[in-house]
Amino acid sequence: MTATENLSGRARVAEPGEGIGLDELALAARNHGLPLEALRYDVTPPGLHYVLTHFDIPAADPATWQLAIGGAVERPLTLGLDDLMRRPAVTSRVLLECAGNGRARLEPRPVSQPWLLEAVGTAEWTGTPLAPLLEEAGLSPDAVDVAFTGADHGVERGVEQDYARGLPLAEALRPEVLLVWGMNGMPLLPQHGAPLRLVVPGWYGMAHVKWLTRIEVLTEPFTGYQNARAYRLEVDADDPGEPVTRIRPRALMAPPGWPDFMTRERFVRAGAVPLAGRAWSGRAPLTAVDVSTDGGRTWEAAELAPADPAHPFAWRGWTHDWTATPGACELLVRATDAEGTQPVEAEWNRQGMANNLVQRVQVTVLEA
Amino acid sequence: MTATENLSGRARVAEPGEGIGLDELALAARNHGLPLEALRYDVTPPGLHYVLTHFDIPAADPATWQLAIGGAVERPLTLGLDDLMRRPAVTSRVLLECAGNGRARLEPRPVSQPWLLEAVGTAEWTGTPLAPLLEEAGLSPDAVDVAFTGADHGVERGVEQDYARGLPLAEALRPEVLLVWGMNGMPLLPQHGAPLRLVVPGWYGMAHVKWLTRIEVLTEPFTGYQNARAYRLEVDADDPGEPVTRIRPRALMAPPGWPDFMTRERFVRAGAVPLAGRAWSGRAPLTAVDVSTDGGRTWEAAELAPADPAHPFAWRGWTHDWTATPGACELLVRATDAEGTQPVEAEWNRQGMANNLVQRVQVTVLEA
Repeated sequence: MTATENLSGRARVAEPGEGIGLDELALAARNHGLPLEALRYDVTPPGLHYVLTHFDIPAADPATWQLAIGGAVERPLTLGLDDLMRRPAVTSRVLLECAGNGRARLEPRPVSQPWLLEAVGTAEWTGTPLAPLLEEAGLSPDAVDVAFTGADHGVERGVEQDYARGLPLAEALRPEVLLVWGMNGMPLLPQHGAPLRLVVPGWYGMAHVKWLTRIEVLTEPFTGYQNARAYRLEVDADDPGEPVTRIRPRALMAPPGWPDFMTRERFVRAGAVPLAGRAWSGRAPLTAVDVSTDGGRTWEAAELAPADPAHPFAWRGWTHDWTATPGACELLVRATDAEGTQPVEAEWNRQGMANNLVQRVQVTVLEA
Repeated sequence: MTATENLSGRARVAEPGEGIGLDELALAARNHGLPLEALRYDVTPPGLHYVLTHFDIPAADPATWQLAIGGAVERPLTLGLDDLMRRPAVTSRVLLECAGNGRARLEPRPVSQPWLLEAVGTAEWTGTPLAPLLEEAGLSPDAVDVAFTGADHGVERGVEQDYARGLPLAEALRPEVLLVWGMNGMPLLPQHGAPLRLVVPGWYGMAHVKWLTRIEVLTEPFTGYQNARAYRLEVDADDPGEPVTRIRPRALMAPPGWPDFMTRERFVRAGAVPLAGRAWSGRAPLTAVDVSTDGGRTWEAAELAPADPAHPFAWRGWTHDWTATPGACELLVRATDAEGTQPVEAEWNRQGMANNLVQRVQVTVLEA
């Protein structure tokens, strides 16, 4: 493939059976997922939370960082980090998931960051609510969208850009949307958007713009690359597609027992094997988590921890008591929210977005 | 491939042209490298330092953690974390690199964790020297090796094991070898071995045993899996190979300009382009870093920062002033130590170990 082909046009879809390429591998080595045993932590420690960076992590100096708020407002604002940190601060525990999570499990595989199912994490984000700032700036009555621009710069599918995303005004005004400078009680890490990022609880990760430098209020819908071309549910290359927005339901299991290094298949001893993990949905309240220990033929209800009013945007724990009998088996887990259940068969789309296909864990049960 | 084939015998070598498999991808998604722009930080922030975990990250409770020191000693010891932290503490800035770094750039590709060239990082490690503890335990005059065992448990190439590595006694007694509980001024993170790990400056990462529970002094060389079978420079499946020990010289460049999302190719504007990165060697003093801006046809000496006596085991910075002219070009960088220079052509070995092939960066230089 020539550079011109690489750098222009739409994402490629892999040929049937085509292995992961070196370009996909380079993305997988840069970015990283949550090792699934780290589902054990209520709040994901630094370095175990997933990271997806389109371009490079910018070099940022908090002392001189400025956020400009402009566009269709009466009083444009320019704020330093100090100005923001003098405002009312809140800390919110929020589940984040990459919209491309599950992409590499689609067949045929859309060629991009090749996530399997580990592009998640839950952190404690500290910042100040966005809505009062927008109100202080004085929103135009014609405002419909708010565009958020980061300092990360590069070329994607032929388009040179600073990473930027538009958010409908009603979403931007939700009280839980934050301008964030802290993570897990510490300053933001470079790869998570230091010194300033957006957090939009309930939405896939692409909305949570990192290295935030500019907020622009728009009277027309935002038409930048990351909304108009990327992050859309397309069935083919001619389909404009629907935009990706809120996180679909998903449950993940911390694989039980011990792994094989290369295959990540699991071994457990026969008898009582506690199963546990996390579940979430950004689009509707979770209602159930179910587990199958026979490859999906039968399902049993797992114990889903009650929703915690202190952490409405965090994941929720689940547990299930499994009595393992010797032999090979396949464990599955799936979440249900008020709008539906995770699919057992993948719903394909051309960018590999919002694929919440159920997890499958291969286990060999050894004699007790 | 059946589970039996996967779980027994030796690592596979990929067929010519065979893409990365889902098993390799699962490892690449769990583990992670240093995004190369993070070479800008003298000390690698949490989450940007490379991580390689053979099995799962263990769940560890610092309050009850115990380290046993035994084997060929007069006075076996059992120490809690508090006991260790009451001993003299030192902080040491140490470059770590995975022995498998560069594996995925070999042809044919050894099938394992598919690193390209980003499995590095430099952290400030805080702990207590190992040698005085071994002396307090009273080393047998017959001692030759010291075996270090972690709490991480799994199966590798058919062998169930706690991760364990042996180190020659003379190496274990080096004053810079530390039992470590802190990283970058904070408690160790789970993925870096919390609450206790070994740090052996100058050696590849496999020697720096994480989640350390047991130290055993041996009067015969250690014959565990990770020394006798893994981490060896084998030319074929019948070759026992030489053991992998100290880090070979390498220089890496923070790629200049801005990237294409998918190919990671770079764009810069014509004119003065500062190039910068890091270089290191664990086997001998660094003597030079050279840069090529014409695909390796010619080389120029880069400016190598002087060795810092305060940080003898850290990487060293280098810079080079490049005057870029429009067109496509390929940048290379290579380090030389007192024993030799990084190869431009890969030296193949069957496990893909210690591959310090030079980095190549594709750049399109645009009109100024």
